[in-house]
Amino acid sequence: MQVERFTVISSDCHAGLPPERYRAYLDPQYRETFDQVLPIQKHMTDKAEQVFLLKDINEQWRAGVEIQLAGAWDHARRTEVLDADGVAGEIVFPDGVTQQNAPPFGAGLALPTKNIVPDLQWAGARAHNRWLAEFCALDPVRRFGVAVCPLLWDTERGIEEVRFALDNGLGGMLIPAITSGFEAYHNRCYDPFWEACEDTGTVVCFHSGPGAFDDVFGPGFPEGDQDRYPGGVGVYISEVFFWTYRPLIFMLWGGVFERFPKLKASVTETGQGWLLPPLLRMLDHHYNDTVFSAKLGDFRSHLSMSPVDYFRRNCAVGASCMPREDAEIRHEMGMDQLMWGTDFPHPEGTWPNTAARMLETFRGLPEADVAAMLGGNAIDFYGLDAAGLSEVASRVGPPKGHFGA
Amino acid sequence: MQVERFTVISSDCHAGLPPERYRAYLDPQYRETFDQVLPIQKHMTDKAEQVFLLKDINEQWRAGVEIQLAGAWDHARRTEVLDADGVAGEIVFPDGVTQQNAPPFGAGLALPTKNIVPDLQWAGARAHNRWLAEFCALDPVRRFGVAVCPLLWDTERGIEEVRFALDNGLGGMLIPAITSGFEAYHNRCYDPFWEACEDTGTVVCFHSGPGAFDDVFGPGFPEGDQDRYPGGVGVYISEVFFWTYRPLIFMLWGGVFERFPKLKASVTETGQGWLLPPLLRMLDHHYNDTVFSAKLGDFRSHLSMSPVDYFRRNCAVGASCMPREDAEIRHEMGMDQLMWGTDFPHPEGTWPNTAARMLETFRGLPEADVAAMLGGNAIDFYGLDAAGLSEVASRVGPPKGHFGA
Repeated sequence: MQVERFTVISSDCHAGLPPERYRAYLDPQYRETFDQVLPIQKHMTDKAEQVFLLKDINEQWRAGVEIQLAGAWDHARRTEVLDADGVAGEIVFPDGVTQQNAPPFGAGLALPTKNIVPDLQWAGARAHNRWLAEFCALDPVRRFGVAVCPLLWDTERGIEEVRFALDNGLGGMLIPAITSGFEAYHNRCYDPFWEACEDTGTVVCFHSGPGAFDDVFGPGFPEGDQDRYPGGVGVYISEVFFWTYRPLIFMLWGGVFERFPKLKASVTETGQGWLLPPLLRMLDHHYNDTVFSAKLGDFRSHLSMSPVDYFRRNCAVGASCMPREDAEIRHEMGMDQLMWGTDFPHPEGTWPNTAARMLETFRGLPEADVAAMLGGNAIDFYGLDAAGLSEVASRVGPPKGHFGA
Repeated sequence: MQVERFTVISSDCHAGLPPERYRAYLDPQYRETFDQVLPIQKHMTDKAEQVFLLKDINEQWRAGVEIQLAGAWDHARRTEVLDADGVAGEIVFPDGVTQQNAPPFGAGLALPTKNIVPDLQWAGARAHNRWLAEFCALDPVRRFGVAVCPLLWDTERGIEEVRFALDNGLGGMLIPAITSGFEAYHNRCYDPFWEACEDTGTVVCFHSGPGAFDDVFGPGFPEGDQDRYPGGVGVYISEVFFWTYRPLIFMLWGGVFERFPKLKASVTETGQGWLLPPLLRMLDHHYNDTVFSAKLGDFRSHLSMSPVDYFRRNCAVGASCMPREDAEIRHEMGMDQLMWGTDFPHPEGTWPNTAARMLETFRGLPEADVAAMLGGNAIDFYGLDAAGLSEVASRVGPPKGHFGA
């Protein structure tokens, strides 16, 4: 008799080539620049490791797991890791092993705009998206690829990237979380982009990582005198989730989901338990309260419902490495919206202790809730192949009853 | 037999002259510029009211209470209002009646840096501080004045303003909450300023109001096409408390209170119940956790205790118009740090319904806790004249037993 198993989706995984291997995926006219920039990119990565005194920490973490970490780009290794983790399917963001597998020209998770040549960043994004499309095509049931899109430079070009993604089997579009210096996402100038995403069923994605680096580490970072900025990293990690939620705040108040009712947007690795409940309470309060904000005039009548209602209808949360406390307040955050994830292959993720962490998080909770957070919600939200994934899960997933309720 | 009464302190009040009356308080060399700028300032205020469609709302609110609102700058009127409100003492921030009593040259609550001439902003700040010193001197027991200080331009000049405040009986120093484009407050360049504040017992103050206006309303605001930015005000009020807490995040991680253990800093009107508990939990987590942030290296060893411990020792919260829900989670936020306030004469404040709002907030709570939040905490934190205030309170304060516990 076959054991029934949970279909587990990691809503937060990362993949990327070793930097030098992106060359082949770049349009040829950018390869000479790529060759010139590569050593600088490596220098900056090393320099950043020095600044944070983390070379030892990173090397220690990687020691002995180099083979599995090659799963950041190697099909067979990745499949082994996910199987061993009990994970049937995954949402695949850029930037593989920490700071070592970012796409070229700043086309990675943070999508910076400072000291960036827009044409090159678009080229780097396209290179990553090409490779990612190939990588996901090796196992399209299990891998849902999120394309990189430095949208702020050019909405039309963003729409081209949506078309490229659609034509090549990628279902999500990572756009910059930090918009300062550009129009923010309540501006109507992005409407054609939202429309393209809605029409094609492409999910708009935000992922933590970007921060106010100039404020925190000084404008010269990673050069410059870091001793002048004590505790910068503490500030960074205390703010980073705010920066990730911020674009949603603009979209929700801006009526984006009013105008594009089928558009979907996710935020991933956002320390959900800390900020999400108070953020939702605050959005609802500001929509319903009439005393505190009366002096600010009408900012509600273009919305037919509360920002929280749009959030519940159009958004979901990639709750990477969800701690127990988050699972306990799941109803407050949105039982239909929490999507667990491993963050593989990042060192802050659950891997290689996924089984133990999963048990700690979900032990004793109602099985239907666990099934939703572990996979069902992600399958529904991202529109994954439930039947195909269930077949994979029948080999690798944790057995029903495993969490003891 | 005399009734025992609560000594009530409003930790959040505002005062400011009608704009044209600041002229006399400006150094003479700035008066010609003042005359040129005044009509522009009035135009901008009107324009902002139009953009937000709030002219009617504001006029409606002001109708019939013009005399009391003159308490923004008129000694006798203010005394009457505070007496009637049951308030013995107050912490006095700039910007009187909404948008109508801001100091000249951008030297008000928001302390913007964009399109600002630094010399003029310093001159405007000094003009306000001169007037405020006179105003507080009319009733020094009841009025604790917070000087305005656009610190980002020049630390030395900031220190001069601390000396001016000290010499003129002002005890707090309002510095910009938004530091983007300048060094943030973890940078050691501010150490001489913190030292001056610590040495003189001057409290560093942050007050909500400033926001990312360019992001929210576009770079041309209040000119420009606001239809392109739907829901901007919703974004603004959903972010504004973050911007107010943000400088504290820099100071706490930056070790400012480690180096200056007697320095005091307050944040005021920050929607405390929404953001403060999760912020404190997050700061503590990031100080104590070693998994999530291990890859970021050492950012703790310059601190001898958790950021939350410094917060408890060195900081306090001006909890304007504290709602019932906030009073209920007072221990989580910090029973010794919550300081109630009316926000008079701002329309979102408790006035003219202070008595009812106070009762709603505190009814049935332990009397010692109510006494601390209503006044005791502010007296301790700001170092107010407890005996003098108690005497005032014996005439105007709510009687003990009033809250029924």
